[in-house]
Amino acid sequence: MTSTAPAPASPTPSRTDELLTPLGRPQAGWRLRLYTIIFEADTRAGRLFDLGLIGLILLSIGVVMADSMASLRSEHGVLLSVLEWTLTGLFSAEYLARLLCVRHPWRYARSFYGVIDLLAVLPTYLAVLVPGLHALIDVRVLRLLRIFRILKLGAYVAEYGALGTALWATRRKILIFLTFVLMMVVVLGTLMYVVEGPANGFTSIPVSVYWAITTVTTVGFGDITPKTDLGRLISSAMMLLGWGTLAVPTGIVSAEFAARRGQEPTTRHCPECLSEGHLPSARYCRDCGARLPPWQRDPA
Amino acid sequence: MTSTAPAPASPTPSRTDELLTPLGRPQAGWRLRLYTIIFEADTRAGRLFDLGLIGLILLSIGVVMADSMASLRSEHGVLLSVLEWTLTGLFSAEYLARLLCVRHPWRYARSFYGVIDLLAVLPTYLAVLVPGLHALIDVRVLRLLRIFRILKLGAYVAEYGALGTALWATRRKILIFLTFVLMMVVVLGTLMYVVEGPANGFTSIPVSVYWAITTVTTVGFGDITPKTDLGRLISSAMMLLGWGTLAVPTGIVSAEFAARRGQEPTTRHCPECLSEGHLPSARYCRDCGARLPPWQRDPA
Amino acid sequence: MTSTAPAPASPTPSRTDELLTPLGRPQAGWRLRLYTIIFEADTRAGRLFDLGLIGLILLSIGVVMADSMASLRSEHGVLLSVLEWTLTGLFSAEYLARLLCVRHPWRYARSFYGVIDLLAVLPTYLAVLVPGLHALIDVRVLRLLRIFRILKLGAYVAEYGALGTALWATRRKILIFLTFVLMMVVVLGTLMYVVEGPANGFTSIPVSVYWAITTVTTVGFGDITPKTDLGRLISSAMMLLGWGTLAVPTGIVSAEFAARRGQEPTTRHCPECLSEGHLPSARYCRDCGARLPPWQRDPA
Amino acid sequence: MTSTAPAPASPTPSRTDELLTPLGRPQAGWRLRLYTIIFEADTRAGRLFDLGLIGLILLSIGVVMADSMASLRSEHGVLLSVLEWTLTGLFSAEYLARLLCVRHPWRYARSFYGVIDLLAVLPTYLAVLVPGLHALIDVRVLRLLRIFRILKLGAYVAEYGALGTALWATRRKILIFLTFVLMMVVVLGTLMYVVEGPANGFTSIPVSVYWAITTVTTVGFGDITPKTDLGRLISSAMMLLGWGTLAVPTGIVSAEFAARRGQEPTTRHCPECLSEGHLPSARYCRDCGARLPPWQRDPA
Repeated sequence: MTSTAPAPASPTPSRTDELLTPLGRPQAGWRLRLYTIIFEADTRAGRLFDLGLIGLILLSIGVVMADSMASLRSEHGVLLSVLEWTLTGLFSAEYLARLLCVRHPWRYARSFYGVIDLLAVLPTYLAVLVPGLHALIDVRVLRLLRIFRILKLGAYVAEYGALGTALWATRRKILIFLTFVLMMVVVLGTLMYVVEGPANGFTSIPVSVYWAITTVTTVGFGDITPKTDLGRLISSAMMLLGWGTLAVPTGIVSAEFAARRGQEPTTRHCPECLSEGHLPSARYCRDCGARLPPWQRDPA
Repeated sequence: MTSTAPAPASPTPSRTDELLTPLGRPQAGWRLRLYTIIFEADTRAGRLFDLGLIGLILLSIGVVMADSMASLRSEHGVLLSVLEWTLTGLFSAEYLARLLCVRHPWRYARSFYGVIDLLAVLPTYLAVLVPGLHALIDVRVLRLLRIFRILKLGAYVAEYGALGTALWATRRKILIFLTFVLMMVVVLGTLMYVVEGPANGFTSIPVSVYWAITTVTTVGFGDITPKTDLGRLISSAMMLLGWGTLAVPTGIVSAEFAARRGQEPTTRHCPECLSEGHLPSARYCRDCGARLPPWQRDPA
Repeated sequence: MTSTAPAPASPTPSRTDELLTPLGRPQAGWRLRLYTIIFEADTRAGRLFDLGLIGLILLSIGVVMADSMASLRSEHGVLLSVLEWTLTGLFSAEYLARLLCVRHPWRYARSFYGVIDLLAVLPTYLAVLVPGLHALIDVRVLRLLRIFRILKLGAYVAEYGALGTALWATRRKILIFLTFVLMMVVVLGTLMYVVEGPANGFTSIPVSVYWAITTVTTVGFGDITPKTDLGRLISSAMMLLGWGTLAVPTGIVSAEFAARRGQEPTTRHCPECLSEGHLPSARYCRDCGARLPPWQRDPA
Repeated sequence: MTSTAPAPASPTPSRTDELLTPLGRPQAGWRLRLYTIIFEADTRAGRLFDLGLIGLILLSIGVVMADSMASLRSEHGVLLSVLEWTLTGLFSAEYLARLLCVRHPWRYARSFYGVIDLLAVLPTYLAVLVPGLHALIDVRVLRLLRIFRILKLGAYVAEYGALGTALWATRRKILIFLTFVLMMVVVLGTLMYVVEGPANGFTSIPVSVYWAITTVTTVGFGDITPKTDLGRLISSAMMLLGWGTLAVPTGIVSAEFAARRGQEPTTRHCPECLSEGHLPSARYCRDCGARLPPWQRDPA
């Protein structure tokens, strides 16, 4: 990596900041002005740019979708092509502008959003240059992920962060749960393969495991169904099992959310040290030991 | 708006009140008597009117349903027509009575329930006058929404409000969650369109996204199902993902309900130490031992 | 009602007791001995009787099921008939014994379990006497409900009562929720009837409402599916809606259970008045105001 | 049982320990060195052995699955056979090594994991010796269960135990709930059998009960669906019922998890007033204002 100097505007950047604003703001001049518009949303121009970009991304997704519908493509093929090229041009210009105004272009280009930005424009060019790669053109739908970058700027940031933190805190429990479920569907899928057999649609163990997942998650496509009495008995047990098992991840996430929600009423301030985050039932400041005024709840 | 004088009976009307009793009560005379019957439920006549109206609305929905069943319409067509015209006549009379007794008829007519009341009678007339509009006749089912107006008068008001408030408090988290889910189904639907292709029923990206929603929500109609091994592998991952994802809105709502439920018995204050959070059955303060005043529950 | 004297053994019988032990115990003699065996489970004979009865009921359900399977009936028809008549005989004897030993036979015969006990034996007799009533013979499956009476005697009584009380406490919220869901499926079902029409399987509004319930509850049979683009768009919205809506009853029940669970650690006793049910955080007795010893949690 | 001397290394072995490390460690020599590698994971060699074993088990499951797919078996049949025999050889050697180094080989052989270990190698040998037993070869998939033994050694032990304890605590409530659901589906299945009859696919009561489970758990395969109006009405009620019923196990598990989660930060005691329930971040007692000792979290 050629540039190791820290960006002045963010002396202690967290990994998330790094991810979201890939490479520190420039210090002055037109590049700073461009940067505040493209990468930030604290100015009127910056907010307008973000709103416009969201609109263009959604329009672009609409074009990709319409392009995949045979009737629309045959009727409005030219319009869709013009729209696609216009949007690709705009996104290319935006990508170049980002590269231009950022302090470390190479680091930006290799960052998560730098790659997504490139993937948003590359397929259209490649589909023309290399006809064989036409199948790749639907990679354009990844443009949707660019909305995440903009979302961080809205009024929903706090909720977004809280949701993410809560879910992240449950990752170990969820992983253990998933391990159990995977073992369960492999064992039960194999059992059904033996019981029903290829004649009844359970053509192989992987297909039977796919069917077991279909059943345990209560999706139940019905493309494969048990035909024998024993198979139906085992299926019934699996459905009840899967139905009950669904309670586990829900319980994990609910408990996590509830525990965090219960700690929320923390707008109380300590009159001595001004610390926050006291529980409704606390009577003394947990940070300096001063007596807290009684909790005044809003008449909700 | 031509009438801006505030309704005397509700000096500080909230937006909800405004919605529910569209335009303030008249001050005296037969219009006030009619108003108390039609719009209110504090008198015996008012309650009887509401009960009768609920009965007529449900009967009317039954007529609309029966009218759509070929066998019933061919057998009892005349009876259904008579019933429909009688009900339309009664609803029309009610609509006129509401217009008559309300203080600001024009404001009522433009209010939410004013429009619903008009939509409840208009289709029957329009279907006769303009034969081409016969398809609109099922708009009559919106009569069902009129029950909401009456429900506000029952014993379930408090619970209804509590439910609504709790759900409203989760709207931001739910919206963020929905954004993620929508992005997920668009990206996964496109992936399946590329993997399975039109030959296996995934005829376009919108259809594939419809299938992805079917799968992730565990509905699983089975009208479109993956046929290739790779498609089934991706589907399996999607089902497990959707199954786990279902835990998120449930967790959000559960935590909100739990936090509100947990606070239900805590409006009691200790007269000595002002501590809160006493159970309904407590007789002495759990923090200072002072005697608590007896718990006053609302007559629910 | 001819007998109004209270049963001596239960001076203040609750409605539930009334329901479960329909008519008070006799005072002495062989009737009392029979009563303790048949109606109670505090003696060894009583427990054996209950276990035997559960076994016979389950066997009887098995016979009813086997009787409905064409292959089993043609092969083992005689065996099934013998078993059925033996079981009916035993249940008849039990019914007569219950009538004999109970203090108020007529009140027992009209009670909930008295009717169930009669329904358990009547169909077999009726099917022979009145051949046209053969369709009624599957009413025998109601014998299953008799297990409820016996369950009250097991070790699960406390949990059973706690579950029931918690669910009963949520009945108003659940009812409001159900009203909303029913309105939603009627309106959305009608919309789909208009959009898809009889040609695509939505043959009438009731059928479309059935389909809407299928979709919103995420069952998704797939016997009726949307074919038009607009119909699939509306379906997608309905699935997401139903998926999210599922969070509401779960949240209601979870919050209720959590609130009750949170109040559970109530094995603390007041050293003064011996009252129970103090919260972990309480420092003074809520009943007499005496100071509580600090809460000692088990090292779990 | 021939060996009753307690294993010195675990003076008070719980039933779980017994299950996981079937028979106590040897006291010295090469058997102890082998034991620490095979049964324990505290040494580098032991961890490498466990990782290698997990890899081999997963590879072996892959081979079993590939062997069941007709196309793969016809193409790569020889490779699959070689892999299978190599893996069976390795697992056999491991089984023998376990028998050799453990203090009480016979007790190990009869323990849960001893049987699983034998079942992991036996089918391959049996399929060669007794051709008629070829159907049993898929018992090999039970090798997957051996991963559980290894999982106990990872960083997820605490979470795994907490999940298990919480679910175990709900077993009574879940059992009562399951009893109700089973009664419900038997009664409703019989009802649908009477209403729809064999002509509409409800060929017997067991099949109708299978369908009822399909419906109530919201799986909805669609292989059997109601055709009559009355049947669809009952189905609609069943779907709504099942949808609501799903809230019960989720509520039970959520409440259990929430109660445990809520107690997580409360093992701190105030040294002055012995109050509990302090948050991890608190520095002073919220009840008496005394300074709290710093929170000692386990190195998770």
